Amino acid sequence: MLAKTFLQRNVLVSRCLSSVTSSTLKVGDVLREARVYSSEDVKSYAEVSHDWNPLHFDQELARKAGFENRLVHGMLVSSMFPRIISSHFPGAVYVSQTLHFRSPVYVGDEILGLVQATALRETKNKYIVKFSTKCIKNHSELVVLDGEATAVLPSLELLQPSSSER
Amino acid sequence: MLAKTFLQRNVLVSRCLSSVTSSTLKVGDVLREARVYSSEDVKSYAEVSHDWNPLHFDQELARKAGFENRLVHGMLVSSMFPRIISSHFPGAVYVSQTLHFRSPVYVGDEILGLVQATALRETKNKYIVKFSTKCIKNHSELVVLDGEATAVLPSLELLQPSSSER
Repeated sequence: MLAKTFLQRNVLVSRCLSSVTSSTLKVGDVLREARVYSSEDVKSYAEVSHDWNPLHFDQELARKAGFENRLVHGMLVSSMFPRIISSHFPGAVYVSQTLHFRSPVYVGDEILGLVQATALRETKNKYIVKFSTKCIKNHSELVVLDGEATAVLPSLELLQPSSSER
Repeated sequence: MLAKTFLQRNVLVSRCLSSVTSSTLKVGDVLREARVYSSEDVKSYAEVSHDWNPLHFDQELARKAGFENRLVHGMLVSSMFPRIISSHFPGAVYVSQTLHFRSPVYVGDEILGLVQATALRETKNKYIVKFSTKCIKNHSELVVLDGEATAVLPSLELLQPSSSER
């Protein structure tokens, strides 16, 4: 089962995405990071965002609403995208983001965030980069969240040219 | 000065926005909430999102990058929109959000979040509602963040038909 999961994930990644092959960002490069969202994460996020929607805390209510379990806040999952970008490009400034919440993320799910550079333009010694942004659930091909982001990067040099996910 | 600020804010609100006049949401209704983002909020958000972009923590670096002060994470400011919607409609499920980060939000800024219902459709005893979403800074007319959201509401009854902001 573990082997199957490993295979699925790597097939997915190799089929859909080119790797980052140098320390300078190019169109087509993909940055990625995985994370499991815990009950504590959901509570901490509610404390700072003030979003106490009961779907995130009341399992019974979440089930009555048609979900399998308590939901992770969609905007907490979305925070993966600026996190991934700024961890590679400190000083990155976010310009825009579109978000389509396509499938629920439950407490305990492992989410793989994928950020792919799709367009790149230099202006005044900075770089305006468009990214496609996607989150995939539990080593499957299920896209739970996708959209596009634009950020201004101070440089195209990757601070962390490799990670445990790459 | 306080009177001027109060006047500015209320002129803005009365000129641009119709009020919520009943306990049932209608197209045109506006929900709003204000908040000041502190250093502690920025730190707490970084801890849960893992987004440690130095623009949020290093004042000198933020100034060198052309900003007046340390920035509040854009996605933390964006969290006002689902917070406002779910505080009035517990059990609301977020479907989509677009975000345009138009102007920086600094630590200490007071941000007024405005969420206006623009379209409404009933389906299977639930309600799909589109909202225009906007954040305005420091009692001015400066829009720092705008976009659109879609959410599925379990009911159109407002849990809190009035607030300190309305």
